[in-house]
Amino acid sequence: MLPALPGAVVEEIAAFGRYAASRGWVPATSGNFSRRVDARHAAVTRSGIDKGAIAPGDVAVIAIDEPVPPRLSAETPLHLARYRSDAAVGAVFHVHTVAATVLSRLYEREGVVRTDGLEMHKAIGVRTHESTVEIPIFANDQDTFALAARVEARLGADPAVPGYLLAGHGIYAWGATAADARRHLEGLEFLLACHLEERRLR
Amino acid sequence: MLPALPGAVVEEIAAFGRYAASRGWVPATSGNFSRRVDARHAAVTRSGIDKGAIAPGDVAVIAIDEPVPPRLSAETPLHLARYRSDAAVGAVFHVHTVAATVLSRLYEREGVVRTDGLEMHKAIGVRTHESTVEIPIFANDQDTFALAARVEARLGADPAVPGYLLAGHGIYAWGATAADARRHLEGLEFLLACHLEERRLR
Amino acid sequence: MLPALPGAVVEEIAAFGRYAASRGWVPATSGNFSRRVDARHAAVTRSGIDKGAIAPGDVAVIAIDEPVPPRLSAETPLHLARYRSDAAVGAVFHVHTVAATVLSRLYEREGVVRTDGLEMHKAIGVRTHESTVEIPIFANDQDTFALAARVEARLGADPAVPGYLLAGHGIYAWGATAADARRHLEGLEFLLACHLEERRLR
Amino acid sequence: MLPALPGAVVEEIAAFGRYAASRGWVPATSGNFSRRVDARHAAVTRSGIDKGAIAPGDVAVIAIDEPVPPRLSAETPLHLARYRSDAAVGAVFHVHTVAATVLSRLYEREGVVRTDGLEMHKAIGVRTHESTVEIPIFANDQDTFALAARVEARLGADPAVPGYLLAGHGIYAWGATAADARRHLEGLEFLLACHLEERRLR
Repeated sequence: MLPALPGAVVEEIAAFGRYAASRGWVPATSGNFSRRVDARHAAVTRSGIDKGAIAPGDVAVIAIDEPVPPRLSAETPLHLARYRSDAAVGAVFHVHTVAATVLSRLYEREGVVRTDGLEMHKAIGVRTHESTVEIPIFANDQDTFALAARVEARLGADPAVPGYLLAGHGIYAWGATAADARRHLEGLEFLLACHLEERRLR
Repeated sequence: MLPALPGAVVEEIAAFGRYAASRGWVPATSGNFSRRVDARHAAVTRSGIDKGAIAPGDVAVIAIDEPVPPRLSAETPLHLARYRSDAAVGAVFHVHTVAATVLSRLYEREGVVRTDGLEMHKAIGVRTHESTVEIPIFANDQDTFALAARVEARLGADPAVPGYLLAGHGIYAWGATAADARRHLEGLEFLLACHLEERRLR
Repeated sequence: MLPALPGAVVEEIAAFGRYAASRGWVPATSGNFSRRVDARHAAVTRSGIDKGAIAPGDVAVIAIDEPVPPRLSAETPLHLARYRSDAAVGAVFHVHTVAATVLSRLYEREGVVRTDGLEMHKAIGVRTHESTVEIPIFANDQDTFALAARVEARLGADPAVPGYLLAGHGIYAWGATAADARRHLEGLEFLLACHLEERRLR
Repeated sequence: MLPALPGAVVEEIAAFGRYAASRGWVPATSGNFSRRVDARHAAVTRSGIDKGAIAPGDVAVIAIDEPVPPRLSAETPLHLARYRSDAAVGAVFHVHTVAATVLSRLYEREGVVRTDGLEMHKAIGVRTHESTVEIPIFANDQDTFALAARVEARLGADPAVPGYLLAGHGIYAWGATAADARRHLEGLEFLLACHLEERRLR
C-alpha cells in the first residue's frame, strides 16, 4: 500500500512551483518536481498542470521501484532513477530556462558546459572558486526509461555536480532537501546565465 | 439579441491580462483578448484599456458573424475570423513581445520562423521534440478585415501551429480554453526567446 | 498663494512610481514625476526619495512660471518647461532605463533614434505602423535651465513624438493625463527595446 | 558584552534582502548584508540562509575588532574591514549579479571597470555626469582576511566610489545608512548593466 501524501511535502513542492513560475522557468505547464516521502516512495507532480498553482490533487505518491502510473509526467522515470541511485537524494526539480535550452544545444556534441573560476561553484558543493565545473548534457529522448538509464550510467555513484541538462529541453537538479535542490538549481542557472553572457560578448 | 456576459469569462480574460501585464507583454494598453461565449458569440476586450486591470465594463459580447461594433479594438476581426474558421477555438490572445516583434521582422520575407528539436514543441501540440515547427508570419496591415482573410486562407482548416506572428506587431495564439490559449502563447514565446538567443550567439 | 496638493494627484504619481519601480526604471532614487494641478501650477516629486514608495510629503506644488524652490529635483525646469510650452500637457514622467541610456549615447551625434514599421507607433499617436518615428536626443547638461530652453526650442509647438531622450541619462514622456503619459512612456520604451534588440543581431 | 540586536536593524536588513531577492541578486542563498549597530559592533547575516526571507535569528551582532564567530559568512571579514576603515560606513551590502560577475572577469587584468558620461554617476556621489568612474576589481580569494587587507589598502581613506567588484564573484557597496548603501548598489549595478549592453553592441 502507498503511504499518505504529507501536507508538508505538497507545500514544499507548491512553494517551489510558485517561485519557479515567478522566474518564468515553467512556461506552458512545463517542468516537473518531486520529493522523497520515504525510502521506497516519492511524491511527483501530475502532467499538464500550472506549476505556479499546485494543489494537493496535483501531486501523487508513487513507488520508486514500480512502473509509473498513468496521468504522471512522461519524465517521471528521470526522477525515480535519481531516488533509486542515491538514497541521499530527497528532492528533484526540473525546469525549462532559455539559458539551459540554448547552451544545452550549443554544447550537445561536447556533452558538457564548462564554467571556471566562479564563486558560485561553492553553491553546488565545490569547495573553492578555483575550480572547473562540468555540467553534463544528455541528448533528449522521448523514451525516458532509456534516457534515465543513460543518465544514471554516466552520473555514477557520486556525481560531481548535482544537476544535468537535456539538450533542447531543460535542466534537472537535486538535493537532500527541497531547499538544497532549489539552491543547486539556482546556482547552476546562475552559472549558465554568466556563461551565456560571456558567449554573447565574444 | 446578444447573450449576457458571463462573469467567469470576464475573470478568465482579466486573469490572463494580469499575467500578461506581469510579463510586460501588453505595453501601452496594447494587446487584445477574446473568449467564445457560445456558437455564435464571443467576448472581446475594448480598445485603449489597461490590460493588467480589466473590469467587466472593459469586455463586450459581440456576434461572431456580424459587423464589429464601435469602441472595440481594430484587431477584433482577427479574433472573430478564428472563431468562424474553427468551432473548436474557445479563446484567442494577442500580445506584443520584443521577441515576436523583432523575429517577425527579421523573417518577414521568409514568412515563417522555424525552430527545431525543442522539447517545448510538445506544448503547442507536436508529438515529439524531433520535429521542425514553422510559426507563420503575416505582413502587418491596418485593414484588419483584409488581413484576417489572408490569415485564415493560409492557416486553412487545420493549422499545424496554434498561433502566428504579425510583422513588427506581435503574436496571436488560441486554444479550446483560456488555459490552452495561454499554454500555446507561453510555448510559442519560449520558442521565440530561444531562437532569438541562438541568433545573438551567431 | 499656492493651491493645495490634491490627494488624487499624489495617488496618480505614487501609482506610477510603484509601477516604474517594479520595472526597474527608477534605480538609485533616480527619475522624477510631475502632474499639472491647474493652469499655473504643477505637483512635482522631491529629490532623493524612493520613487517606489512616494508619500504625500514627497510631492510639492509649485508655480509653473516661477523659480524652482529648494529640495526639488535639479531636473524640475525640464518638467515646468513642458507645462509652459503646451497647455494640453497634464503629466510628465522621467525614468532611467538601460535601453534609453545606451541608445541615447549610440545615436547622440545623429540627435535621434529612428524606428520604422512598428505597430507600437500607434501607441504614441502615429496613425499607422507604416511610418518612421524619430525620437529626439539631446546632449545632457547639468544646467537644466539652458537644457530646457534647448529642448523646447527644438520640440516646437507641436512635437511629433510625446517624449525625448537625454544622452547617457534617460527618457522623458508626457501626455494630457497620467495614463496618457504612462502609455507614451511604455510605447517609447518598447520601441527602444525592439531597436536595441535589432542592433544586437547585426 | 555584545549589545542587543535592534529590531529596526533586522528589519532594514530583511527589507533589503526581500528587494535583492526580487531582483534575482542573491541566487542560491548567496550574498551577505551587514549594518553598523554602534562604534564597535555590527549586525551581519548568517551563512546559508535564504536572503529573501531573513528572520531575527538569521542576523548576529558581532564585534568589529574581534575574530569572526562560527556560522557566519566566510566573507564577514570584508564587511568588518569596511567598518574599521571608515567610521562613516553604516551598512555594507554584497550581492551576486550576472553583470558584476561577467564584467569583473572581463576586466580583471585592468583591475577596474570604467564608465563615463552617465547621469547615474551622480547616484554614487560624483558631482556631474561629465566624469569617468572607475569601479575597482579585486581578484577573488578564499582567504577573505588577506583579501580584506588588499581591498582596504587599495581603497584608502577616501574611496572615490562606494563599492567594488570581486572577480567572478559579485559586488560590494556601502553607505552611511541602509538606504545609502542600497542607492549606491543600485547605481553601480545600473552603470554595469549599461556598460555590458554597450559591449554587446560592439
